[in-house]
Amino acid sequence: MNKILIIPDSFKGTLSAKEVCTFMEVGVRAVIPQANVIKIPAADGGEGTVDALLTAMGGEKRLLWVTGPLGEPVQGFYGILPNGTAVIEMAAAAGLPLIPENRRDPGKTTTYGVGELIADAAASGCRHILLGLGGSATNDFGCGAAAALGAVFCDAGGKSFLPTGETLQNVACYDLTALKKALSGVSITVICDIQNPAYGKNGAAYIFAPQKGADERQVGLLDQNLRALSRLICKTEGIDVQSIIGGGAAGAMGAGMAVFCGGKLCSGIDAVLDAVEFEALAKGCDLILTGEGKFDSQSLSGKVCIGLAKRAKALHIPVIVIAGGVGDDISAAYDLGISAVFSINRLPLPLSESAPMSGKNLSLVTENIMRTFKILT
Amino acid sequence: MNKILIIPDSFKGTLSAKEVCTFMEVGVRAVIPQANVIKIPAADGGEGTVDALLTAMGGEKRLLWVTGPLGEPVQGFYGILPNGTAVIEMAAAAGLPLIPENRRDPGKTTTYGVGELIADAAASGCRHILLGLGGSATNDFGCGAAAALGAVFCDAGGKSFLPTGETLQNVACYDLTALKKALSGVSITVICDIQNPAYGKNGAAYIFAPQKGADERQVGLLDQNLRALSRLICKTEGIDVQSIIGGGAAGAMGAGMAVFCGGKLCSGIDAVLDAVEFEALAKGCDLILTGEGKFDSQSLSGKVCIGLAKRAKALHIPVIVIAGGVGDDISAAYDLGISAVFSINRLPLPLSESAPMSGKNLSLVTENIMRTFKILT
Repeated sequence: MNKILIIPDSFKGTLSAKEVCTFMEVGVRAVIPQANVIKIPAADGGEGTVDALLTAMGGEKRLLWVTGPLGEPVQGFYGILPNGTAVIEMAAAAGLPLIPENRRDPGKTTTYGVGELIADAAASGCRHILLGLGGSATNDFGCGAAAALGAVFCDAGGKSFLPTGETLQNVACYDLTALKKALSGVSITVICDIQNPAYGKNGAAYIFAPQKGADERQVGLLDQNLRALSRLICKTEGIDVQSIIGGGAAGAMGAGMAVFCGGKLCSGIDAVLDAVEFEALAKGCDLILTGEGKFDSQSLSGKVCIGLAKRAKALHIPVIVIAGGVGDDISAAYDLGISAVFSINRLPLPLSESAPMSGKNLSLVTENIMRTFKILT
Repeated sequence: MNKILIIPDSFKGTLSAKEVCTFMEVGVRAVIPQANVIKIPAADGGEGTVDALLTAMGGEKRLLWVTGPLGEPVQGFYGILPNGTAVIEMAAAAGLPLIPENRRDPGKTTTYGVGELIADAAASGCRHILLGLGGSATNDFGCGAAAALGAVFCDAGGKSFLPTGETLQNVACYDLTALKKALSGVSITVICDIQNPAYGKNGAAYIFAPQKGADERQVGLLDQNLRALSRLICKTEGIDVQSIIGGGAAGAMGAGMAVFCGGKLCSGIDAVLDAVEFEALAKGCDLILTGEGKFDSQSLSGKVCIGLAKRAKALHIPVIVIAGGVGDDISAAYDLGISAVFSINRLPLPLSESAPMSGKNLSLVTENIMRTFKILT
């Protein structure tokens, strides 16, 4: 046990992924002070994605003024990793926290500033862009971002305009010529950990617009507008928007990035592992520690721990999961590359009482796992 | 990991030590089906001690009618281990559950039947007797048991009588000649996990008589009677009764067994480990699993896990503790022979909700500890 990778998800509501890394490292070093510990907080594309990857990999953070979700200027940012990949989180320019609660309106908000961040990265020479969706205030199908990159959207009268959630149905045609030029030679990976399609009862409007400020009536209208633009896209490009898994992410920006910018939707963990060049990084690694808030049968379908385990298994590197809680029926995990699963709960206490001890408990169980290894070494 | 000893305490209020053994074995066998697993539920001298040792070691259970705590006949029992050691629990002949609640009276109850069990074992050729104290209904200083073995207690008028808690002070002299003959060549180890002295504010009467049915007034009288007999013993034998640690166990039967029968008071875990010939049994053992309801700083002073760890450490065998709960500040345990400590709590739930899952959770964490070993083997 010398080289140990720590690649956890956050323990939602309790510890950030970065904090999980820190507390796990404390546990490791209590037993093996000189261990070569590499910490990579997994990101889900939401707030913190840029910082997580910059922390893990090093790199540069760029700050720039861009258009905010309601058209006002906001200070946005993105990261450039040492390998030249740009990491952008859409929440930096179109996130819900950028708008006071009483002004939230997914009919009027735009992703324009996100497009400005992408454009800046592309103009700076980044050939690969990692775009995190998550925490959006918008429902504009990513039209704002596309427009900032050069797309032109026109109404039935041939007049160009900037579509937002409540005006998407007015798009009669669009032109991607300038956008394609701006993104020439640039590939975009869109981090998206949800499976929702663009529209319909499980789509962007019905599932996510209420938390962005929409009432029931508006949700219905937003959904119809997403459908209308999807029909136009189908006619124009021959793409069945609804078949894009995760297309509903960030107010259908998932679908928009795929259609307008050729973005490839990808799970957060795979995007992160690609960005950090996991297979090279893991060379000579003795153990990978991961974790999430609750590890249960849901975790078996592609969340951080399993996504990581699948790739570690191919390299024959053992993975141990340490979770805030461990559900029933996790035995399938053992076949998916996970060697063992532990919970951090030291005492039989409800979450309200145990949550403040989470960090300490996480260190303690990590330490005792390392002590267990020591028995045999 | 082939030969594994499982020697746990009970998880008080949740799982018996025997159940803990079973659930730990399930976890071990999930990973190493062919393991050589030896299960020894630790006993504390109370109810279940005989069965625990017979389960672990094999042997014979003898049933016989003896005198109950109120003088009525009860079916008592004791065990004879394959090595010829007799295991007796005093609760079998003088236990609180043998008396209906409305008839409990530590002034009148006797340990006479316990002496009959000892006498039968000695007469059967047992050269060593392991006597568990715990769960007693009595406060007779063990005079009843001594009388059954041949001791004669006389009052000031020279008349012999059977002293009980309320008449101990009437003993003016006693004769152990016949008792010593009956126990010739027989050594007695008294299992006693408490530290209370015979009398005084921390003594048998004040601490334990209330749960045996005594009110405040009677507690005071019982305590005075214990003092009176202790004075007589001091005069007769030169023994300072109060200096016998644990002398207050089972209504001062701890002190009585030491004074009248030459019994050696010993912690439950040491007595059990001696009885099973631990040092021989542990030969070639790769791992010892132990556990208790709550492992905390109190556990560090001589409870099952630490008592076991001390002896395992001398043999260089690693010990892992799996507990119902793990308290703060257990780091000293690592120096006392414990390699690692895990808790069974899978989810952040209060005891009322997690208790029904204890067995399953215990198996699960045991399984994952074994899986952790498998990484390196």
